[in-house]
Amino acid sequence: MKAGIIGATGYAGAELVRLLSGHPAIDDMILSSVSFEGEHIESVYPNFLSRISAPLLSADAVIAAADVVFSALPHGIGEPFAKACFDKGVPYIDLSADFRFDDDEATFKAWYGKPYAHPELHALSVYGLPELNRKRVQALAGTGKAIIANPGCYPTGASLGAFPAIAKGLMKEVPSREGAAIVIDAASGTSGGGREPSRSFHYPECADSVGPYKVGAHRHTPEIARNCAAMAKQPVAIIFTPHLVPVNRGILSTIYIPLAAEWQAGSPDHSVIRPPAEAITNQTAKIRALYADFYRDEPFVRVLPDGVTAATNRVRQSNYCDISIHLDHSGSTLIVATAIDNMIKGASGQAIQNMNILFGLDERAGLEMIPAIF
Amino acid sequence: MKAGIIGATGYAGAELVRLLSGHPAIDDMILSSVSFEGEHIESVYPNFLSRISAPLLSADAVIAAADVVFSALPHGIGEPFAKACFDKGVPYIDLSADFRFDDDEATFKAWYGKPYAHPELHALSVYGLPELNRKRVQALAGTGKAIIANPGCYPTGASLGAFPAIAKGLMKEVPSREGAAIVIDAASGTSGGGREPSRSFHYPECADSVGPYKVGAHRHTPEIARNCAAMAKQPVAIIFTPHLVPVNRGILSTIYIPLAAEWQAGSPDHSVIRPPAEAITNQTAKIRALYADFYRDEPFVRVLPDGVTAATNRVRQSNYCDISIHLDHSGSTLIVATAIDNMIKGASGQAIQNMNILFGLDERAGLEMIPAIF
Amino acid sequence: MKAGIIGATGYAGAELVRLLSGHPAIDDMILSSVSFEGEHIESVYPNFLSRISAPLLSADAVIAAADVVFSALPHGIGEPFAKACFDKGVPYIDLSADFRFDDDEATFKAWYGKPYAHPELHALSVYGLPELNRKRVQALAGTGKAIIANPGCYPTGASLGAFPAIAKGLMKEVPSREGAAIVIDAASGTSGGGREPSRSFHYPECADSVGPYKVGAHRHTPEIARNCAAMAKQPVAIIFTPHLVPVNRGILSTIYIPLAAEWQAGSPDHSVIRPPAEAITNQTAKIRALYADFYRDEPFVRVLPDGVTAATNRVRQSNYCDISIHLDHSGSTLIVATAIDNMIKGASGQAIQNMNILFGLDERAGLEMIPAIF
Amino acid sequence: MKAGIIGATGYAGAELVRLLSGHPAIDDMILSSVSFEGEHIESVYPNFLSRISAPLLSADAVIAAADVVFSALPHGIGEPFAKACFDKGVPYIDLSADFRFDDDEATFKAWYGKPYAHPELHALSVYGLPELNRKRVQALAGTGKAIIANPGCYPTGASLGAFPAIAKGLMKEVPSREGAAIVIDAASGTSGGGREPSRSFHYPECADSVGPYKVGAHRHTPEIARNCAAMAKQPVAIIFTPHLVPVNRGILSTIYIPLAAEWQAGSPDHSVIRPPAEAITNQTAKIRALYADFYRDEPFVRVLPDGVTAATNRVRQSNYCDISIHLDHSGSTLIVATAIDNMIKGASGQAIQNMNILFGLDERAGLEMIPAIF
Repeated sequence: MKAGIIGATGYAGAELVRLLSGHPAIDDMILSSVSFEGEHIESVYPNFLSRISAPLLSADAVIAAADVVFSALPHGIGEPFAKACFDKGVPYIDLSADFRFDDDEATFKAWYGKPYAHPELHALSVYGLPELNRKRVQALAGTGKAIIANPGCYPTGASLGAFPAIAKGLMKEVPSREGAAIVIDAASGTSGGGREPSRSFHYPECADSVGPYKVGAHRHTPEIARNCAAMAKQPVAIIFTPHLVPVNRGILSTIYIPLAAEWQAGSPDHSVIRPPAEAITNQTAKIRALYADFYRDEPFVRVLPDGVTAATNRVRQSNYCDISIHLDHSGSTLIVATAIDNMIKGASGQAIQNMNILFGLDERAGLEMIPAIF
Repeated sequence: MKAGIIGATGYAGAELVRLLSGHPAIDDMILSSVSFEGEHIESVYPNFLSRISAPLLSADAVIAAADVVFSALPHGIGEPFAKACFDKGVPYIDLSADFRFDDDEATFKAWYGKPYAHPELHALSVYGLPELNRKRVQALAGTGKAIIANPGCYPTGASLGAFPAIAKGLMKEVPSREGAAIVIDAASGTSGGGREPSRSFHYPECADSVGPYKVGAHRHTPEIARNCAAMAKQPVAIIFTPHLVPVNRGILSTIYIPLAAEWQAGSPDHSVIRPPAEAITNQTAKIRALYADFYRDEPFVRVLPDGVTAATNRVRQSNYCDISIHLDHSGSTLIVATAIDNMIKGASGQAIQNMNILFGLDERAGLEMIPAIF
Repeated sequence: MKAGIIGATGYAGAELVRLLSGHPAIDDMILSSVSFEGEHIESVYPNFLSRISAPLLSADAVIAAADVVFSALPHGIGEPFAKACFDKGVPYIDLSADFRFDDDEATFKAWYGKPYAHPELHALSVYGLPELNRKRVQALAGTGKAIIANPGCYPTGASLGAFPAIAKGLMKEVPSREGAAIVIDAASGTSGGGREPSRSFHYPECADSVGPYKVGAHRHTPEIARNCAAMAKQPVAIIFTPHLVPVNRGILSTIYIPLAAEWQAGSPDHSVIRPPAEAITNQTAKIRALYADFYRDEPFVRVLPDGVTAATNRVRQSNYCDISIHLDHSGSTLIVATAIDNMIKGASGQAIQNMNILFGLDERAGLEMIPAIF
Repeated sequence: MKAGIIGATGYAGAELVRLLSGHPAIDDMILSSVSFEGEHIESVYPNFLSRISAPLLSADAVIAAADVVFSALPHGIGEPFAKACFDKGVPYIDLSADFRFDDDEATFKAWYGKPYAHPELHALSVYGLPELNRKRVQALAGTGKAIIANPGCYPTGASLGAFPAIAKGLMKEVPSREGAAIVIDAASGTSGGGREPSRSFHYPECADSVGPYKVGAHRHTPEIARNCAAMAKQPVAIIFTPHLVPVNRGILSTIYIPLAAEWQAGSPDHSVIRPPAEAITNQTAKIRALYADFYRDEPFVRVLPDGVTAATNRVRQSNYCDISIHLDHSGSTLIVATAIDNMIKGASGQAIQNMNILFGLDERAGLEMIPAIF
């Protein structure tokens, strides 16, 4: 099978190239790049020398030759390529946000500033978070008319952490009323900002420091809310704050989910603050078991055992989403920590997972990397 | 004035030595160390060479000679020294947790595992968060009977971020009922773990990674709750999660405060998620002004202007607490980000600030460092 | 084939476990650990969860069951295990320094402080730097009496950078007389220090800083000198200085080789310093071609093209040694930069490469990782 | 005294602003910036908020009002400002390379690509490395015609490490013949690259990695060679290789100086490699003492005692140059390690030191920062 990658020289594109080069079902790759058309991928990424050599062509050349097309372009410019693939009958897996909002053009336009050029494609596309929509992706198999929107990095870690609590009714009132929002406090490594240099990612300005950004205004907010609502089958209040941390890869999401009364374990007396009592430990174990059961058949979600806490270095260079389960000291709020490698489960690895599902391959194919702690 | 430092070779002790060596009211320093007694401070910290030279003596020698004693010992072993200072009439400023809980021995014992040896001292000691208790510290001046408990690093950043909202009634119901907890999601640099090597702070295991620790079970939880309750004059529900980030210095706290209805600005419709509207921006500005007014006379709190977000590299090597004010996208929750240098405002700088207040000096004396962004 | 790993919970051991778990010829692994005997590897390294599960046994149990034994113990304690393997006829690949000095017991004792317990084994063992001794490793195949000393991390990067210049007579007089030493200035990531916490590798003391250590006194000095002498067939003067850099993985070696007169390209006039002239550029290209030719059949050495400089992030997580070729501004000294991943080509990957050679497998088996730039 | 800073918003300019704001002789600062003219310095550097507030004016406005002018512009554009200051009789301290080569226009032009516009100024300017040219700077005092070229960052650390060996005749033959070059292998933190974002300093591409750059072709090469020649009073062969390390501040230089026969201590037998014998330790101590004596009156050079090795975290945020003295294992080569904070002793601190000398102030004024190890 020939894989085409449009936008192969950005970080997500290059990571796709690296991962797909070891994929058992991929014989060949055809790459495009606007910035480096005419050069070779290994001159842009010398780490590929002696292993991957491919000319950087036009997007048209990619679409003409490929059996499956991945688009790793910036937001807002991929629709014509999606259309071309659709018309030609080639599956199109889009790593940008362009197709993540289905037919909700208003939300897309509000956050990304552009209307849909081809609304009919958005009506047909599938949001490819396998743990939510595996069957919908599978349903596209063989149709020759597949557009898959690969999820955003933050929404992947946030949604996977919240899903079991939402699905199993742990959360206080869904849809939430006042005070029952899910708070998602997340931290991303710098590769999430892409390959283009800027002040925010200039080493002396972001190394050895931590801070939030785009508070209350990050584009991944509606995507997370939409995913939670899809799981709840009704609106869910979410609050999302991203932070930048001096790390190359990884997203850590700490998710606060107010528990319904029957799931709480502690005392409502806030005037006495004590270390977690046994009742809280037991309730945590119960919820952990519930999470583990929810994800028991998922190849890339690991619900961590008691005593192990999610951290980005435990999923580094892998397609795993690690989840650790905790309660706050008072037993009233579930605290879920999730860790992913933002370049893999948060981007290119998940795109390959979607390809595997779409083509009926082993979902793990090409994604068998074991995390390296450093 | 002669400053004595018990436990001078730990990180907080050594930082005290460094800062006090430039303090206009300190002529001399007398240092002690259990681990390095008999050596000189500059052999333990060669960065001090040619600038600071002092033998490492016993704690008794420090108490005998000093006009003010700082204790930078681990938790649980300082009470005898406090007693000795008290009996001698020398002010004792304690950087450990030993005196942070006043007469609430039950809470101290529950979290730190030890009963009080001298309850009478705890009844008299003052928790030295100047922005909360400046007058109580001042009241100790000249009594010759001063024990000041220097606040914990996390509680400093968390409390300063929450205080104005609590004091001004922005928060939904105080004391909170279900669902109205303040969530404090905080990240600390590694120096917070002290000088003793351990796996958690071993470079290959914590560099290039981020993760939470002691979720629902960190000792600073009751201290934060107590501070918030002191400001609210009634219990406040708080949830606190610390994270470790690959940073040398700094604590970033992101604080989620559910707003009372009259302080909310947005729409309660969680099915439509939009970028923040002008009403939210305006409300944010109003709350920012309120915060700025609350701290208008504080020398070390900076409420940041619109467009500037708290980050640890903006307070690096200084005694400032920076605060930035935000609302979530829906306008229902106040999001306050605070940044401090954990070694300075979070430990040794604040201890000096307390000394300055106690001795009627300019509160800024010895603490005039301007932050270096790198 | 069953692989046994003695000392599986140190960094090199765990990296072996991770890499071997994907090796096509390895069906099973038997692991030992003194520190964690009785536990499972995935509880020590939770990054392995759901992928690798194995009990930690005794070294004897490993030797009894394995078809090949890797020893990742600290220096000085492995000889009894080597003897046991030798007697049983099981190949023993030693990642420590114990067998690196062949029959030169005096040098080993001088630097490592211990005499040989079994000198007869050292007489038979082979130093497994494939680019130097591939044929000697191959000659052990099938003998059932194989002890292979896996090279040190620094010696690997240093030797591979110097070999072609030495072998092809580029260097001024071999053996050198005064002034013609090869200077090797190298920098290592922190994982080279192993898993045991210590002050030197405590995050706040080594992050955001760089400095040399053990100047003129590092144990890898005699190993490098011996390798260079083996290539030169006479003694070679080398000077070696290691540095610690705040990096997880990787060794960068910058190697200064004084050129013989006929290989120099510039002017001997040191009173006029100019940017490199065309003659120097041309000479650099000529030497680069010579290096490329020297390594043309090596699967894991990449001589980088003009314009690409060796850096540790270009070999990250791979078994490559990258080499870039430069001349100083005056054209009198060859400057070779080499980069390896210290955990892979500098330790566990090279050990697997040795196993592959010894067992007649594809030398690349299990080592096909493509470097990730971050 | 009013200090003017042209180019105040680059890193060196902003560091000048920060340091001068605490200088006892500076009452006021007048700042210029081409990029941010019309804004205020504290909006470009919010870390200055509440402490430093100044409008960003034109360079002409700075020159018109200042009693001393610092220029922190990029290379090649400052001569007109130097001329204006000279004509007005205001001392001009230039942090760029423009005046570092005195009347050697050919060398400047060869490396920086521009001829001199005002050769007469270069004939009068002084290269302000105090440890070399203090008296020449002092001689400008009161003339009203002072142009001081502040040294480059690498040349500062390299020159200070080599000077005593050169001056005291430790080095093998000066000027060197073949094989007796001084090798300077140096590593810089990322702030040395300035504030402008670029791929080389983009966090994901330089974090967690180390590599050399501009090998044999860095502009600081002729400056180092010129300084060494000035000390030797004849040409000296130097070889200089810069590296980039993932550090914010600091330059570490490891300097290899071939010793004259009478200064060597070991054996010339390169076939036997042993740990350093007592003779070598003694010779090291002797050379260390010689270095200490050479710098005994220097306020900002610290020759470290036995057992302490130069590292950038020991000079962090200070104006010190630390020097540690070592011999290679064979006793034939002196290895000197020097560490500076590239922003302070390597740029803005040294500029203030020059101002202090020129104006007859205490040379330490405004530069009394004690290094912080983190």
